[in-house]
Amino acid sequence: MKIRGIHHIGVAVRNLEESASRWAALFGAERGAVEEIPERGVRVIPLHFPEGPAVELVSPLGEQSAVARFLEKRGEGIHHVTLDVDDIEDAVEKLRKAGLEFITERPQEGAGGSLIIFVHPKSLNGVLLELREEAE
Amino acid sequence: MKIRGIHHIGVAVRNLEESASRWAALFGAERGAVEEIPERGVRVIPLHFPEGPAVELVSPLGEQSAVARFLEKRGEGIHHVTLDVDDIEDAVEKLRKAGLEFITERPQEGAGGSLIIFVHPKSLNGVLLELREEAE
Repeated sequence: MKIRGIHHIGVAVRNLEESASRWAALFGAERGAVEEIPERGVRVIPLHFPEGPAVELVSPLGEQSAVARFLEKRGEGIHHVTLDVDDIEDAVEKLRKAGLEFITERPQEGAGGSLIIFVHPKSLNGVLLELREEAE
Repeated sequence: MKIRGIHHIGVAVRNLEESASRWAALFGAERGAVEEIPERGVRVIPLHFPEGPAVELVSPLGEQSAVARFLEKRGEGIHHVTLDVDDIEDAVEKLRKAGLEFITERPQEGAGGSLIIFVHPKSLNGVLLELREEAE
């Protein structure tokens, strides 16, 4: 397992389009295309800066979405942080052995055809950490 | 005002040293030196990845610290995200005109001699955003 670094941070918002336009204008960020990810129950818009990771704005797709529950419980705010890994299966195996718990049993499809899995916040200082392996 | 990108994300933890050792071991990150920032009421340890922004673990320095209140109210978790700006005074002026509110009137000293200021979460989708100008 090799971790390259932070790929993006996710921010849960109620109004996706309006928030994306506002953030792009405020910070001179480049607004990417909206993507729907039914497997995770989310719609996302990435905001790209000249250097480094993006901010990904996330809104729920349906009321059963985990992001809908997050918004209801805590309101809008920083939702998750995502690390790029070279081999997600290997990473999950090693991190499970080290005591981390994951929200799903196995990685699932994320944005742009990537493979992703979330570490449970209770096993990592309250942080919802996403691991992400780039699509080939 | 030019924003380069994300400099780090801050994670509030109760036990700084233990958390830093655990994160470094789990993710193969390089643990930096602890730094005390009395102006902000925090102790921080950065965790560096091979590429890109760091994760900064943050613990309170004293019970009056804003981070102490965060931990009491919400528990451990992602606390803030920091953007690098080339000119923080200019950024504050422009973002105030655009309607953002800041937690302090003016920038103050941050880690490593940088200048920093925090946007109030209520004016930015619940996100505690730090702006940071590198020390000269």
